[in-house]
Amino acid sequence: MSGTAAGGGRADALESLLGDSGVDALLVTELTNVEYLTGFTGTNGLVLVAPGLRVFLTDFRYVERAAEEVGEGWERPEVGRELLPHVFERVAGNKIAKLGFEDAHVSVRQLEQLREKAPEGAELVAAGDLVEQLRMVKDDEELKAIAAAARLADEVYEWAIAQGLIGKTERAVAVAAEARMRDLGAEPSFPSIVAGGPNGALPHAEPGDREIAAGELVVFDMGAKLDGYCSDCTRTFATGEVSDLAREVYELVRIAQQAALEAVLPGAGGKAVDTVARDLIAAGGHGERFGHGLGHGVGIEIHEKPTLSVASEDVLAAGNVVTVEPGIYVAGEVGVRIEDLVIVRDGAPENLSSLSKELTLVG
Amino acid sequence: MSGTAAGGGRADALESLLGDSGVDALLVTELTNVEYLTGFTGTNGLVLVAPGLRVFLTDFRYVERAAEEVGEGWERPEVGRELLPHVFERVAGNKIAKLGFEDAHVSVRQLEQLREKAPEGAELVAAGDLVEQLRMVKDDEELKAIAAAARLADEVYEWAIAQGLIGKTERAVAVAAEARMRDLGAEPSFPSIVAGGPNGALPHAEPGDREIAAGELVVFDMGAKLDGYCSDCTRTFATGEVSDLAREVYELVRIAQQAALEAVLPGAGGKAVDTVARDLIAAGGHGERFGHGLGHGVGIEIHEKPTLSVASEDVLAAGNVVTVEPGIYVAGEVGVRIEDLVIVRDGAPENLSSLSKELTLVG
Repeated sequence: MSGTAAGGGRADALESLLGDSGVDALLVTELTNVEYLTGFTGTNGLVLVAPGLRVFLTDFRYVERAAEEVGEGWERPEVGRELLPHVFERVAGNKIAKLGFEDAHVSVRQLEQLREKAPEGAELVAAGDLVEQLRMVKDDEELKAIAAAARLADEVYEWAIAQGLIGKTERAVAVAAEARMRDLGAEPSFPSIVAGGPNGALPHAEPGDREIAAGELVVFDMGAKLDGYCSDCTRTFATGEVSDLAREVYELVRIAQQAALEAVLPGAGGKAVDTVARDLIAAGGHGERFGHGLGHGVGIEIHEKPTLSVASEDVLAAGNVVTVEPGIYVAGEVGVRIEDLVIVRDGAPENLSSLSKELTLVG
Repeated sequence: MSGTAAGGGRADALESLLGDSGVDALLVTELTNVEYLTGFTGTNGLVLVAPGLRVFLTDFRYVERAAEEVGEGWERPEVGRELLPHVFERVAGNKIAKLGFEDAHVSVRQLEQLREKAPEGAELVAAGDLVEQLRMVKDDEELKAIAAAARLADEVYEWAIAQGLIGKTERAVAVAAEARMRDLGAEPSFPSIVAGGPNGALPHAEPGDREIAAGELVVFDMGAKLDGYCSDCTRTFATGEVSDLAREVYELVRIAQQAALEAVLPGAGGKAVDTVARDLIAAGGHGERFGHGLGHGVGIEIHEKPTLSVASEDVLAAGNVVTVEPGIYVAGEVGVRIEDLVIVRDGAPENLSSLSKELTLVG
């Protein structure tokens, strides 16, 4: 997490959203949101933000980590293992009437506990996704971190291709690639997918003991997490001459992916961009075989907003980082997915994935 | 996940808890609970259990995985990407009046969406931790899996000790141990902790670039996840002659850990067991320096019920698997933690950790 992240700019931006959301303060309990605002990476911490108020709380175990990680501008009072009593002291002391909470993350039981303990006169109000809204638009430092993670993953792809695929099990390929990634100083941003032949038709296959044979397609989906930020990329490789169906499907996915990339523009709807790829795949006769969304935002988490899908209500803005990853899955036969990670820019998007999308032969 | 897990025994046990909880059916949405009941390991699935009703639902992406993983006795109707409409069809069709939900996991927003879509006459009722209650008592197959994970982690410890610690960075030791663990076919059950010298006083330090020196204590906390089940173990090693304070603290933790182990018996309260270790450490003059709970349950997740801590209301039962891990942390100087993983048995607990607890010298 960057020094800037720990600065007060993000908390200031959050403060400016409070009024429109009908709350006087926001209690941030979702840990990724806490990390985004403060830089803190421990597993127990929360934040209270109100006009002029910036409080970060953690317990005994993380006091020293917080001192290192949490940026200037945040009060860090020492509290015991229970953080909420202190929160409610501050709520009462600052006469906060409407205390917003993150209703997508706070469980029904947690809300009940909050309500039991809240001071007289403080009402708990569902505040929506205020921090997630901020996180959708990345700043320059975040974009650099994501680009670095993507470059590192591309290096791992190149290394893995050079090692070859034929005769190895899917699991062996995935394990070796992830070990290489760790040697380069990153962690996988999610469990890698290596799925050859008919397994490629399982969009979320776990790499198994099946040996990759010559003359098949291999779906390889992998990302890195580096300095707190994720990348995500998929390529589908050929291990020799493949069937007519495989080549047809590959070309259709490639064309749909390229067309969708060109639709990634500020102001475009997440549904509209999805539709570009979906319509092309349907026109090619494989509409029923593209069963997932076109893409998703990427940042501190591997799946963030905005979403590119038939159900999306998001609208793209410059500074979003999204995947564009159509796929076609012919059950029992073959699967293809091609995925780039791009920054939404005024004009054309900036593609962070450097690997070729021509069907590449790997021995 | 075992074949047995996928059998109907666990769902039958759950069914028998419904009546006492005041619900006619339970909607299980927490994925670890879904895995426990059905064997399913994908990232989108849910379960509806009522007398005579066993329904498992997932989306397009996981249909084939579910066919492999989900055991007999579960209906697996094909549905679209949205699972809830089908759930509510079944709720209406079976005239379920009180539909329990997992209030510790369902978010405030999710509950609102459930309430909007629920059929007339079906009331959503907070059902507590029914599946977690079942998960506390492990069956033989689960115990075997946890024991195997613990054995594998012990092998990794022995290998890491043989490689030596002095002159390596904490991060290098952790990365190498985790790579070894993966070579042996397991994954880390949590990010390993390797914390030397004063870093040992940070109970949740991330392994960093500090080089381990001769003549210090090194806290090494690591576990494996194998066949779906976790292990957890901590040892504190000496890299040569250490200070009087370090030796004193080590001995006190060792004695407190042994005494607490002897208190791990069916019927003992989680708070009472914690108190055994806590009182001994306080009597030794370090009461303020043991700032975390004594232990936690381990199973599919690395942190489960029952909890051993001052706040615990759990009561131990045969078949629980818990850690016993007191620690003393002297800020800026030294830390010690010693942790075993044990099965609660009638009589003495069965210790799954094979490593010596004498202060072991590692070069």
